[in-house]
Amino acid sequence: MKNNFLVPDPSGKLISLANSVRIASTSLAQKSDEERKDALLLMADSLLINSQQIIKANNEDLVRSSKKGLSGPLLARLKLDQEKLLIAIDGIKKVACLPDPLSICQTRRELSEGLILERVTVPLGVLGIIFESRPDAAIQISALAIRSGNGAILKGGSEALLTNEILINLLKDGLSKSTINPNSLSLLTTREESLSLLKLDGYVDLIIPRGSNELVRFIQDNTRIPVLGHADGICHLYIDSEADIYQAINIAIDSKTQYPAACNSIETLLVHQDIARSFLNVAIPELEKLGVKLLGDDKSCQLGIKNSANEEDWSTEYLDLVLSVKIVESLDSAVEHIRIYSSRHTDAIVTESKANAKRFIQIVDSSGVFHNCSTRFADGFRYGFGAEVGISTQTLPPRGPVGLEGLVTYRYHLRGHGHIADDYISGKRVYTHKELKL
Amino acid sequence: MKNNFLVPDPSGKLISLANSVRIASTSLAQKSDEERKDALLLMADSLLINSQQIIKANNEDLVRSSKKGLSGPLLARLKLDQEKLLIAIDGIKKVACLPDPLSICQTRRELSEGLILERVTVPLGVLGIIFESRPDAAIQISALAIRSGNGAILKGGSEALLTNEILINLLKDGLSKSTINPNSLSLLTTREESLSLLKLDGYVDLIIPRGSNELVRFIQDNTRIPVLGHADGICHLYIDSEADIYQAINIAIDSKTQYPAACNSIETLLVHQDIARSFLNVAIPELEKLGVKLLGDDKSCQLGIKNSANEEDWSTEYLDLVLSVKIVESLDSAVEHIRIYSSRHTDAIVTESKANAKRFIQIVDSSGVFHNCSTRFADGFRYGFGAEVGISTQTLPPRGPVGLEGLVTYRYHLRGHGHIADDYISGKRVYTHKELKL
Repeated sequence: MKNNFLVPDPSGKLISLANSVRIASTSLAQKSDEERKDALLLMADSLLINSQQIIKANNEDLVRSSKKGLSGPLLARLKLDQEKLLIAIDGIKKVACLPDPLSICQTRRELSEGLILERVTVPLGVLGIIFESRPDAAIQISALAIRSGNGAILKGGSEALLTNEILINLLKDGLSKSTINPNSLSLLTTREESLSLLKLDGYVDLIIPRGSNELVRFIQDNTRIPVLGHADGICHLYIDSEADIYQAINIAIDSKTQYPAACNSIETLLVHQDIARSFLNVAIPELEKLGVKLLGDDKSCQLGIKNSANEEDWSTEYLDLVLSVKIVESLDSAVEHIRIYSSRHTDAIVTESKANAKRFIQIVDSSGVFHNCSTRFADGFRYGFGAEVGISTQTLPPRGPVGLEGLVTYRYHLRGHGHIADDYISGKRVYTHKELKL
Repeated sequence: MKNNFLVPDPSGKLISLANSVRIASTSLAQKSDEERKDALLLMADSLLINSQQIIKANNEDLVRSSKKGLSGPLLARLKLDQEKLLIAIDGIKKVACLPDPLSICQTRRELSEGLILERVTVPLGVLGIIFESRPDAAIQISALAIRSGNGAILKGGSEALLTNEILINLLKDGLSKSTINPNSLSLLTTREESLSLLKLDGYVDLIIPRGSNELVRFIQDNTRIPVLGHADGICHLYIDSEADIYQAINIAIDSKTQYPAACNSIETLLVHQDIARSFLNVAIPELEKLGVKLLGDDKSCQLGIKNSANEEDWSTEYLDLVLSVKIVESLDSAVEHIRIYSSRHTDAIVTESKANAKRFIQIVDSSGVFHNCSTRFADGFRYGFGAEVGISTQTLPPRGPVGLEGLVTYRYHLRGHGHIADDYISGKRVYTHKELKL
């Protein structure tokens, strides 16, 4: 399903823009922790001083988009009022205070006498960020990019064009008062440019899509550049035969209803047959009271669930107050169901049995595997990362909630005194491979 | 350049094969360090006992391929004689002895009282390995896969078909004597299957291509699965104005001639103008004596290089005794040349100036940046990884030479006692985010 015919080659103008971001990012990568911190504070100031201007531009976007018939929820996402703006500005300051992810020495090893290898964290280079609607995303991701020493090429939704333009211009104004080249940030404004961005391998090191599954999938199918993106969040909660029923119900309610539109909310409840009757007797009325529509397999329908789930339900991300329920014969059948249907985002078990918890945690291969707690904890802030770049459901690192460390990579620095490889083949010298203190 | 029309959808047979590898890999992931070690030793034994059978099959491949007109160097790569086989078997034993990359706790953090987060290394799942010609690669990569708890679907070149078939069968025989399911390894034998492998997302977690740049590029363009692959190795050696000339010449000779076909050999020598005359006076005859063909820019031709380099030379990976030479005005112009033409594999500086070395190491953004040593050290074994899965020229980790750690990922395990997210929103509980001892 590679629709590459839709992706135009980058224009000369786009390449020259990408090149200027790349050059600015090379210089940004040399800046100290303090310089990057200061730059963020100046970016925040620039937005704060001009907040009325931002809100005015956003109002124009809202009026235009409303006339065009943009739906209520999307208009709500597009809206950037004083309150949301202040939260976003405060977010920049918080990112400024996060520990520097750069210049961390991860390995120091003597390869041979006088030949020292170090592995040191460095920025990725240039990020390509494609986000839909929510303009506060532009603020957050720009802050994360600069904090981690990366340039960024951003493309927002057309409905937020005026808001995004003024935001990026003001953020660049802030940068221009710092030691960092304002070309480190750049906004693309046409759909064609946004598509061509996917072909900027060599200029862009990582694409971060923030939007629908369809957007992420389309991008993955049409670029050679690595993509940090998550697909569906089909999360499961398994109520083991040895669960504490009261705890199980609390966790089920939180995992489903605390914020149903989140990717870390559960879509399916798996219930061990031995506890099914007593659990569902309490859980069905409790969940229904909170407006949750329950869809069950045959067995759970016999125990009081009114609607039948079909095969498709097990792989549907409702993002809504809907929950499918299945009775399973054993922990192993729960794990097998999860193996087949889970999107490997987050799956949890409720049980008082240490052995069952251990087995579940060992076998289920999702980025988050939880015991006796809500799946809603699968989140960068809750994990203590201080910021969240996104949640990756890919297997390779960075996996799960991704903090600033997802925006850095590493280099190997090797320092010698005229060391050549041939001396080790001839036997004149030997490798020592000794770990040194970090 | 997405040629997806060439990539057929996976057949039912292939999906069922992939599924059986996936299921076997789930069970493999539960095996202990000792069990995986033992399995490798049994795999090695199985090859050793049947080495005559392997050599016979390889002979048949050699005869057939020779008749088909396979070139000399490719026949040499295809050949698996007693000596090469014993080295490969020894390689399995060495991989068995490497430290276990699994179950390493990378993070342990209290998120809140009684709610403990751990990040633990786990296998990727299933590797898709596409390799050309060299059948010993099948042995090495199978060992690395099992050691790291991963299943593997392998596809070798058609010229090595009989050799690969017997190798994988014998390796599976070895596994069948261990506690590990032999379905963990599987060989694809048709070109069509090999292409469809690229569409097995959901079954295969990482594709490892071992072969030409064209192969790697084709794969990157035609799969949604992450690819661990390197493109060209266009490495540079910069001789600074403050270089020790004797050391510079030694390093240049080693970096170019020690094994010219390696990706970590240099293709371009950048020489500071202030040292160019005295350096080239010695370097030209030394390099020519070793059979190196030198191609120079105008300035270096004036200093004695006989052949002119053209624009294309700066981005050509010769993989041969050919070296392009350019005189630069400053360290900054050397760095700028590297920024434009380097494939970000490995680039080195020779200088006695600490400040110049520091600046070069700080600015050049390649996976290896070296000071006063040969680029030939950019290698997993030399770095002390004990094994090399491949060398990645992508920016994202794993970057540069990749050891066993490139075949693992991590999961987050979160353990609570009925913790729900809503309590933190209502203020009933608070996050503590306290680092705990590993």
